[in-house]
Amino acid sequence: MYAFDTIAITLSPTFVVIGVDSCGPTARPSYATGINIGFCALFLSLYSILRKQPSNLYVYFGRRLEKENSRYQDPFTLERFVPSAGWIVKAWEVTEDEILSIGGLDAVEYKNISQMKLAHVTGSPPNPSHFTILVRAIPKSTEESLTDTIRNFFTNYHGSSYLSHQIISRTGKFQKFMSNAKKVYKKFVRIRVTALDNKCRPSLYRCGLCGVVSNSFQFYHSDYNGKRTDLQHSDTRKRKECSAAFVFFKTRYAAVVASKVLQTSNPMQWVTGIAPEPCDVYWPNLWIPFGQLWIRRLATLLATIVFMFLFLIPVTFVQGLTQLDQLQQKFPFLNRIPNKAFVIQFVSGYLPSVILQVFLYSVPPMMMMFSTVEGPISRSGRKRSACCKILYFTIWNVFFVNVLSGSIISQLHIFSRPKDIPVHLAKAVPRQATFFITYVLTLGWASLSSEVLQTFSLSYNWMRKYIFRLKDDPNAVPSFPYHTEVPKVLLFGLIGFTCSILAPLIVPFLLVYFFLGYLVYRNQILNVYSSYYESGGRMWPIVHNTTVFSLLLMQIIALGVFGTKDAPVASGFTIPLLIFTLLFSEYCRHHFNPIFKNFSAQDFIEMDREDEQTGRMKDIHMQLLTAYCQLPPPTTNTEETYYDDSVAGDAHNQEQPIF
Amino acid sequence: MYAFDTIAITLSPTFVVIGVDSCGPTARPSYATGINIGFCALFLSLYSILRKQPSNLYVYFGRRLEKENSRYQDPFTLERFVPSAGWIVKAWEVTEDEILSIGGLDAVEYKNISQMKLAHVTGSPPNPSHFTILVRAIPKSTEESLTDTIRNFFTNYHGSSYLSHQIISRTGKFQKFMSNAKKVYKKFVRIRVTALDNKCRPSLYRCGLCGVVSNSFQFYHSDYNGKRTDLQHSDTRKRKECSAAFVFFKTRYAAVVASKVLQTSNPMQWVTGIAPEPCDVYWPNLWIPFGQLWIRRLATLLATIVFMFLFLIPVTFVQGLTQLDQLQQKFPFLNRIPNKAFVIQFVSGYLPSVILQVFLYSVPPMMMMFSTVEGPISRSGRKRSACCKILYFTIWNVFFVNVLSGSIISQLHIFSRPKDIPVHLAKAVPRQATFFITYVLTLGWASLSSEVLQTFSLSYNWMRKYIFRLKDDPNAVPSFPYHTEVPKVLLFGLIGFTCSILAPLIVPFLLVYFFLGYLVYRNQILNVYSSYYESGGRMWPIVHNTTVFSLLLMQIIALGVFGTKDAPVASGFTIPLLIFTLLFSEYCRHHFNPIFKNFSAQDFIEMDREDEQTGRMKDIHMQLLTAYCQLPPPTTNTEETYYDDSVAGDAHNQEQPIF
Repeated sequence: MYAFDTIAITLSPTFVVIGVDSCGPTARPSYATGINIGFCALFLSLYSILRKQPSNLYVYFGRRLEKENSRYQDPFTLERFVPSAGWIVKAWEVTEDEILSIGGLDAVEYKNISQMKLAHVTGSPPNPSHFTILVRAIPKSTEESLTDTIRNFFTNYHGSSYLSHQIISRTGKFQKFMSNAKKVYKKFVRIRVTALDNKCRPSLYRCGLCGVVSNSFQFYHSDYNGKRTDLQHSDTRKRKECSAAFVFFKTRYAAVVASKVLQTSNPMQWVTGIAPEPCDVYWPNLWIPFGQLWIRRLATLLATIVFMFLFLIPVTFVQGLTQLDQLQQKFPFLNRIPNKAFVIQFVSGYLPSVILQVFLYSVPPMMMMFSTVEGPISRSGRKRSACCKILYFTIWNVFFVNVLSGSIISQLHIFSRPKDIPVHLAKAVPRQATFFITYVLTLGWASLSSEVLQTFSLSYNWMRKYIFRLKDDPNAVPSFPYHTEVPKVLLFGLIGFTCSILAPLIVPFLLVYFFLGYLVYRNQILNVYSSYYESGGRMWPIVHNTTVFSLLLMQIIALGVFGTKDAPVASGFTIPLLIFTLLFSEYCRHHFNPIFKNFSAQDFIEMDREDEQTGRMKDIHMQLLTAYCQLPPPTTNTEETYYDDSVAGDAHNQEQPIF
Repeated sequence: MYAFDTIAITLSPTFVVIGVDSCGPTARPSYATGINIGFCALFLSLYSILRKQPSNLYVYFGRRLEKENSRYQDPFTLERFVPSAGWIVKAWEVTEDEILSIGGLDAVEYKNISQMKLAHVTGSPPNPSHFTILVRAIPKSTEESLTDTIRNFFTNYHGSSYLSHQIISRTGKFQKFMSNAKKVYKKFVRIRVTALDNKCRPSLYRCGLCGVVSNSFQFYHSDYNGKRTDLQHSDTRKRKECSAAFVFFKTRYAAVVASKVLQTSNPMQWVTGIAPEPCDVYWPNLWIPFGQLWIRRLATLLATIVFMFLFLIPVTFVQGLTQLDQLQQKFPFLNRIPNKAFVIQFVSGYLPSVILQVFLYSVPPMMMMFSTVEGPISRSGRKRSACCKILYFTIWNVFFVNVLSGSIISQLHIFSRPKDIPVHLAKAVPRQATFFITYVLTLGWASLSSEVLQTFSLSYNWMRKYIFRLKDDPNAVPSFPYHTEVPKVLLFGLIGFTCSILAPLIVPFLLVYFFLGYLVYRNQILNVYSSYYESGGRMWPIVHNTTVFSLLLMQIIALGVFGTKDAPVASGFTIPLLIFTLLFSEYCRHHFNPIFKNFSAQDFIEMDREDEQTGRMKDIHMQLLTAYCQLPPPTTNTEETYYDDSVAGDAHNQEQPIF
């Protein structure tokens, strides 16, 4: 029980606040620090052992098993139970290119990122999303069917480049129907694939059922695909159509043109945009009428702000609970417990943190829900939006609320006097330096070791296997939780920048955190997480903006510090620094931001020409027509992992041991 | 002297502030009101007389003389010296369509504006700007010339639609050279045109030298044009080239596509955008390197803000001057003047306003200069930018500074406490209601009558004619000063909205102002001002935004009023009102704003098809090549007004008398 609680506490970002409040500012942090360093070491040692246990293979090597189709042996050796640091060496040795090819552009936490982004666009294999636009708000006509409306419009105005289109059906019924069809199909057709050449599987095919280039499988697959298309077509007449469709073009350039140009004189009709990658499409949101989007966006913005401030209520409540006498009032049975002082102190130290922890764990799903309601059309867009929301939430509720510590709500009025903010921050931030150092140790180090140990995944896997006696589920490979990890890392960056002026002691702790993080995240991307889609490094602008914000905050605090220390010359020199930071940010926004949002005509035209010259264009067009299949999201890449163990195992895997 | 001063004072927006400060809030306004109503009536009567004097023809009928090429007679009749209201009837009778065709889309100060904007795009004659894009930041190559670089790039990536291009030369030397050439040319070639058919002159030809469809003139013109092109070409090798060019396309759609798509992977190279109309191009700014623009924009923003706040210094200084004893300290000679009290009171009342007036007259040129430095490529863009700046300036320095009256700088801290703003405004605005009513009378009514009288133009014309003995200058027809008039009208809208809650007495005064303004501006657009270019109603979003801001401010004040009156229910109901206003604004931004910025593919493709079917496309292409001529701005439409009086005079003019 004690251990379990402590694990929860090591993950709690507010535990130390409470510790500090109830037991004085120095006693508990050193205690917590000791515990946490101990747990860090323990977790990392545990990981180095547990990762070598075959039963945990799907927890720690999900991605590699999925991609490399490994047949694992189970040799019993003593080495399996000895802690080792081999994984650290491996994570260190992986090159940027390997990480890029495995985890996608967002995974490389790099200075020439914009060049890489361009190389990514031009160097990647033919991507169906480059040929496809998503058209929304198609006007409904009583005279002709939706498909005729679309065909007529695009043959009329984009006749030379229009290839085909695919209407999107209202999700729900159709999706259920297709899922059922897939299950039935899987029962009847057991496919045995001898070997699947990794190289023959372009990224076009990542999404499960859409097609795999392999001889024996091809037959069944095309057979199934035929059935699927028939079903889909027969169903088209019955099911409810959305006023949205994917429209395919003959060239990439034509698609980008159609996505950029205002189609009609009514800006709320025939709204076009480049389509997300097939596996990145968030199908349930495509039915949302385009005219609703701006309302949804405003509503979720409002809801997020309200949620951010409502979160202060449990924090205040819990801060009240930490007072010993109040605790006894609330829980009278505490009076009857023997060894009262120790128990009460224990409960007053840990009960609030457990309550807070429950609230804190609700944040990522809550923000993800807000982002879903917001109506993004892609999974990556949803994750990006949730990432921003969690980032704002974290910066507000961890950084600012702690800096303005004490009764938080009564301190809010500081923000209504902008002029006093620098001085107030300059006074408050160093006061909280001890807390932030402990925070780096607790949430930072511990969360990294917890991340590498995959606590939840491990327990879930253990329960599945030994309690419910289920087999390994190879489909349950998660994708990298950018929306929870990116805000964490950025928060530590912010803490580092802001505390470094008056409490430079925090820097070595942060350096250890970042170094450990570098190793852990590389290891996780390499082994654990799978990337189903490529969002094209669009997390980077968020990282950039937050870093600039951190820098500005640091400089504002510096201004306050020099102000309180009566150093007007130093204050004076800080102001140009602020201006230069803003100028730098503007410079970057003008010079690099556009390529994260747009594709360039030059690149696309040259890619089109190359494909035409090599004769690949016909194939690409053929593949395009089946690329977007309205099926449940890509945890269902069953074909790829449905091979019999006895025949599987490829060259790559044999050359390189998995551990 | 008295009259002259008073004229200056009637135009001074701050005169009454001082009046109120020095003599109490009630005495002076009624005095000023009387004077001003009197001057209004006088000015309007004067106008109705002066407009009938042949010597003032170019002051009051500049546009009509320019467009209709009128030959005026000089019959001496008594009627000329009798005040009449005929112009009011005429201004009232003009239809929207006439105003639209004469003054352009910004002149119709209308609810279905977006429909008209669309009709304007589709219904207008072939516009060279629709076929042209402006390319900036063309990379310099050591291997090939700039013209080859451009040709190669566009034939490579837009080969099917690229028509031609025109390099822009560094302004200054070339412009001077061309002006001189034009003068010499004018001396040698006196063109006599018998009659110029108005219908044969599409808007394509508005810009003086670029071409006029008329037989006898055509010969000389094309001769000149030939020389001009030769000169231009021979000069090309010598003069300094900018890394910018106009690129012409075969179709409108191709141009809009090329302007919308990111050209290369470097967003700071080959930057494209739809070109302004030929006469709208602001040539001196085209040489500015694209990479400088964002710095210029930031710098002018900063400069504008600094200027807005620096303006408080003369205001404070002048407010100090109005104190009698201070005035005697500064000007000791006042003690020696007989009838001291009257003179001092007169001077303390009027001297400050004259000083302020000098400062106020510096605002529009100053803002225009800032807007020029900002680097817009079109004259309309520059005017729009100046309009915004003057609008902010006026709202800040007239509305807010007066509301926060007293020692202005010491009141600034109100803005550092956002929560208190509603209550403070609710207290301050009604206090200033008397001032604002007088303000509507002085600046509003008087400025309209001064506008219709064209005080400056009249004096200038008089001096030219009777002192310097110069002939009428038919080229000096001004364009409508949107950048000074739009902010005025919007400010009165703001005052109306904000004062109407607690001082509804202002409404009838404002109604009279708006009605008078409606007549005056219609009259002026009809007779006085010429529109050289069409910015496509892009003033409207500014008008919309300011009106929404006024509404919001009104609602915030209402919130404060209900707050001070302890009416929480009413306050509660104001908040949804605020939210709905914001929602309405967002709705408009999404539904209507895009068409003010973009052209739709549908419209352009259909216009292209129509032109191709009727065979007009070849002609349009021919005309395109000479449409953009790098000459001094279009006050130089000399050919059009260079006709001999004895043969001029067209049917339209004969049917409709000019007065």
